[in-house]
This record gives sequence, C-alpha cells and structure tokens, in this order.
Amino acid sequence: MFIPTIPTTHNETLAALLDKAINNKTKPLGSLGVLESLAKQIGLIQNTREVAITQPAILVFAADHGVVAEGISAYPQDVTWQMVENFLARGAAINVFATQNNCELHVIDAGVNHDFGPRDVLIDRKLAYGTQNFAQEPAMSRATCEAALAAGMALAADLKGNVVGFGEMGIGNTTAAAALMHKLTGIPVAQCVGAGTGLSAEGILHKQRVIEAAVAKHAVAVEPLDVLATFGGLEIAMMAGAMLKAAELRKVLLIDGFIVTSALLVAARVQPAILDYCVFAHCSNENGHQQMLAALGAKPLLNLGLRLGEGTGCALALPLLHASVNFLNQMATFESAQVSEKSE
Amino acid sequence: MFIPTIPTTHNETLAALLDKAINNKTKPLGSLGVLESLAKQIGLIQNTREVAITQPAILVFAADHGVVAEGISAYPQDVTWQMVENFLARGAAINVFATQNNCELHVIDAGVNHDFGPRDVLIDRKLAYGTQNFAQEPAMSRATCEAALAAGMALAADLKGNVVGFGEMGIGNTTAAAALMHKLTGIPVAQCVGAGTGLSAEGILHKQRVIEAAVAKHAVAVEPLDVLATFGGLEIAMMAGAMLKAAELRKVLLIDGFIVTSALLVAARVQPAILDYCVFAHCSNENGHQQMLAALGAKPLLNLGLRLGEGTGCALALPLLHASVNFLNQMATFESAQVSEKSE
Repeated sequence: MFIPTIPTTHNETLAALLDKAINNKTKPLGSLGVLESLAKQIGLIQNTREVAITQPAILVFAADHGVVAEGISAYPQDVTWQMVENFLARGAAINVFATQNNCELHVIDAGVNHDFGPRDVLIDRKLAYGTQNFAQEPAMSRATCEAALAAGMALAADLKGNVVGFGEMGIGNTTAAAALMHKLTGIPVAQCVGAGTGLSAEGILHKQRVIEAAVAKHAVAVEPLDVLATFGGLEIAMMAGAMLKAAELRKVLLIDGFIVTSALLVAARVQPAILDYCVFAHCSNENGHQQMLAALGAKPLLNLGLRLGEGTGCALALPLLHASVNFLNQMATFESAQVSEKSE
Repeated sequence: MFIPTIPTTHNETLAALLDKAINNKTKPLGSLGVLESLAKQIGLIQNTREVAITQPAILVFAADHGVVAEGISAYPQDVTWQMVENFLARGAAINVFATQNNCELHVIDAGVNHDFGPRDVLIDRKLAYGTQNFAQEPAMSRATCEAALAAGMALAADLKGNVVGFGEMGIGNTTAAAALMHKLTGIPVAQCVGAGTGLSAEGILHKQRVIEAAVAKHAVAVEPLDVLATFGGLEIAMMAGAMLKAAELRKVLLIDGFIVTSALLVAARVQPAILDYCVFAHCSNENGHQQMLAALGAKPLLNLGLRLGEGTGCALALPLLHASVNFLNQMATFESAQVSEKSE
C-alpha cells in the first residue's frame, strides 16, 4: 500500500533564526522553558519564522474490539456506541474541553458495533462491526487494516487547519494498545498492561495473560503493519493513517494518551521522521504510557493523572501551543522595548 | 496590625456532594485526575456545588531591592522599571498570556526605584524607592512592612472576580525570597538560592554568601512578619497582604513561582488555613522552588521549566481551572446520557 514519505524537519538555518527570535524577547534566556522548544518545533514543522495556529481540530476515532469477549474491560462493549452518542450530544469531557479551547471536534465511526443510522455530525467510515477477537484470530485482515489506514489518510487530507489532535473511544482498546506496545518495543507485557477504565489487580493480571497467550499464538506477526492488523483496532489503524498523512502535510500532530500513542508507535516504525511533527500532550495515568513515551523519546507537556482518552489531553494542552506561538509573535524584543540586557 | 482570620474550607457534607457530582459524570471513576481534585477544591472554596469562575485577574506587584548593591543579580536594577514600562505597553510575556486566556491584568508599583509620573493603567502604591540593603540593615521597618500588607489587602478587597493570580517583577527579588525561604522553613541557604535571571555558578555562590551573612547579622528576626520586614521586598509584602484578604473573601488564589510562593509562605505562617484557597500554578525551574512547594505540601499543576515570574505560570494554568469548573458544570451524567455503568 502507499505510505507517505515523511521528511525530517531539521533545518539549521531556520533553527538559528528561530533561536535568535526567541532569545531576543524581553525575558531571561531560556526562561519560558518548554514553551521555547515548542515554539521552535512549530516553526520547523511549518518551515517558517512566521508561526501560526489555524483551525485546530481533534479527530476522535471510535471502534469496537473482538477481544472484549475475553473479559478484559471493566465496562460493557455497549459503552462504545453510547459514548459516541454522548459525543454527538455534546455531553462528554472532550466536548467540554474542545469547546472551551475553540477546537473543532470530528467524531469518526471507524468500526463501532452499532448502527447509528444517518447522522449529521458523525463521520461514517465504518469498515466492520468491530475487530475479531485476537485471542483466537488476527483482529483484522491485512486488507482491512490497509483500508483503515487509507481512510485515515483521506480524513487528514481534508482538514483545513494546521494542528490536528487525536482521540479515541473503544471499549477494550487499552488491551490492543498494550499488545502493540509489547510487540513494537519489546517491553514485557506485564509492564504494558494497566487498569484501562478501571480493572482490579486481578483483572489486570487476566488481561496480561490474554495478551501473552495471543502474542505466543501470533508469533508470525513482526512487520509493523502486520502487528497492527493482528492486534490493533480499526480506530487505531485509522488514526495511524491520519497521522502519517497529517505529517506529510506538515501539520502539528497533537498526541493524546496510551491508545493514541500506540497508533503513533506503529506510524513511527514505518516513518520514523513523523516524530518531528509530534507534540505530546500529556503523560497519562495508564500504566505503561510513561514507558511508551520514553520508547519514543517523547517529553509530554502535561502530567495531570488523566486516563480518560477521547483526546481530552490534546484539548487541555492546546492553550500551551497557542502560548508558544503567541509569545513568539507578540512579545516585545529587548531593543523594541528598550530594556537593558544582562550585565555579565 | 489587623490580619484577617482565615477559616478552613473543610465541609464534609459539601465534599460528599461534590464527590458524588464528579463521580456521576460520563467518565471512568477518577479519570480526570488532578482536574477532579481541583473542581472539588474550588467548590469548597466557593462553598457551593454551583462552581463558577468570574473575572479572573492577575496582580503583578513590582518593587526594587536594596540588596542589588551586593551584586546578586544578572541584570541591572533599571530592568525593574523598564519591564514595568513593558507591561504597560503590553509587550511582556504576562501581557501575551493574560490576553490569550481572557484574564485581567493589574500592574502595581509597590516600590520601584523610578518616577513613572501619572499613568492611566499603573496602580501607584509606591511606599519607597525600593527597600534598604538587607546585607547592612533591615529591608524595611516593621511600619513600612505593615503599610505594604495593608495596601495589598485593600487591593484584594477591590477585586470583582473570584480568582486572583499573583505575579511580580523586581530585580534582586529571588535573593529576598531565598532568605525568606531559609528563615521560615529552616532549609539551608545553599538549597534556597538559584540562578534567578541567569547567574553563573560563581554568582549563585556569592548570592548564598550574602544571604548567609545577612541571616547571621539579623538573627533577632524570627516572627514571620519581622522576617518579612527584614529580608522581604515591598512587592512581596504587598502580595502577602493581598493573599490574606483574598482568602478571607473566599477567592481562589493562583500561586505563581519562587517569589510569589515565598510571599505565600509568610502568609501561611500567619494564617495556615490560607493554603486551602491556593492553587499552585506550576513548579518553576528556579532551584529551591520544588522544596519550597514541598514545605507547603503543594502539588503544582504545571511543570514547564518556566523561570520568568510576572505571574506567567498563573496565566498559563488558568485554562485548567476553567476546565475543572466546566467539566463539573457541563458534562452529562451516566443517567442523563444513558451510558451503562461499570460491569463489576
């Protein structure tokens, strides 16, 4: 299948220009910390000294997972479609945070086990009524997985804005994400599994056993997109496709929690330079996220103990992206404000 | 002098109501992490289940410090008034971030070594052209210190909104704050001093020696307000007064970095329950801030490597306060959205 080729954003000349612009602002050198590296990264992604954020959007991908038959989630599968209805009715956390921070929200049915009927604001890209149970057989065929990637690419190509956040909803998807993490990083399954929506210690151990057995069963899956097809979800595959296309189009990718990061892990194994385009919104409270971020060399902006998904971390981090662009565009320089420079 | 008596916000009945409201929202239990405890804290401060943020404001207090004569800052003293001019011209980082997040900004001359002349938007509460050099004599008389506290109280009493952030500008004020920290926590001076606006390792050592000598010289200062008068700044004292009054009026206090936290340290030694009203915006990159926060049992919202002051951390944290209030007011409940609850 066609995968976009993603170039690095490295550019010595532009980097030097951005450093100079940042350092001339009326503040002690480096005193805006992470916001300074963020402003520089956005400049390199947008390939300009004139950074801007236009029409930021969050894409929330929803799908169901056959592996729920193994009893690996604290909530019943119906919660996936019920929460999609909640998104459409504007009652979920992501609705509240996206509205607060002036961020567009697009909800995509990538493969929910429910017929929503024709709906104005739901983007229907349903490829199946959920995946197969990967404890027994591959979650998807390679063809379905590629169709999901392609659908994601097309969605990203349609976006007007230059910042795109990713979110998800899918009962059972921390199990899929933990399996992907294990397969693509080699970190032991026990360190990849967590409570998800609220498993007990016993439930987490069961989830671990289910993944370990499945990994043994599907030992043949090694190549990243085969791993994605075997253990992933339709929402995870569609996200990975959208990420690849968005990076090719030089958009800023805003990465949410455990499941979204697992989609990026797949994309980064295929096109490593995609990481240049990623801003990591937060470190979630899901066990394994911290190590998954470390495996990507990622430094998250926020650490608020969130473990909700939906893209909520992206929406909450968006004001920091605006702040980094705004200080670079709007602050006075030492010269323009006639402020004395350092004595030494 | 008159110091407001600040009651604790503890209220078992209201706390249980808030917990119930938070837990009924359509999300896994506890999955909004810090935002959940923040929503509860704001409810307890406002003493209501109907939380709201109205007209948030940041007060930036500016003043000069006699101790700059000891060569303890990387920037010349003139930068204090020059940066006040920058605030008035809307060119500083705090202007950018306050504007972005719809936060009022009030700049107060508490004791800058400069005549600004009559100015529309500068609040003139100048008590002196800076403090005395505490390496030689107390920074302020007790009377001047009390006048600063009283002026701060009056400013807080005039605020219309229910959230108040604190910021400061004053070349030399990390030296004053470090001395306050040492005197009020007993933490060794070496662990209280940092680079400020950008000292070298040699400069930091010199700053430490200046503070150690002054502490030995003024051993008689022990009572918190005497410590404040001896080592503090006019902006620090005025902030401490504003904090005490704002807490008495049950406003949410948004605490910025190293210097603002040192003002709170004084206020908390006088009225310990003030801490119930405090939201800690961030952990700064100034050496000592982390330990100062720990001494107050504080858990900061952000950790962005900032060390700029001005109240910038407050402005950047404000969207998280809005998010906590908004999820509590706007999210659907499991019942209203007809979402299934946990299986177990």
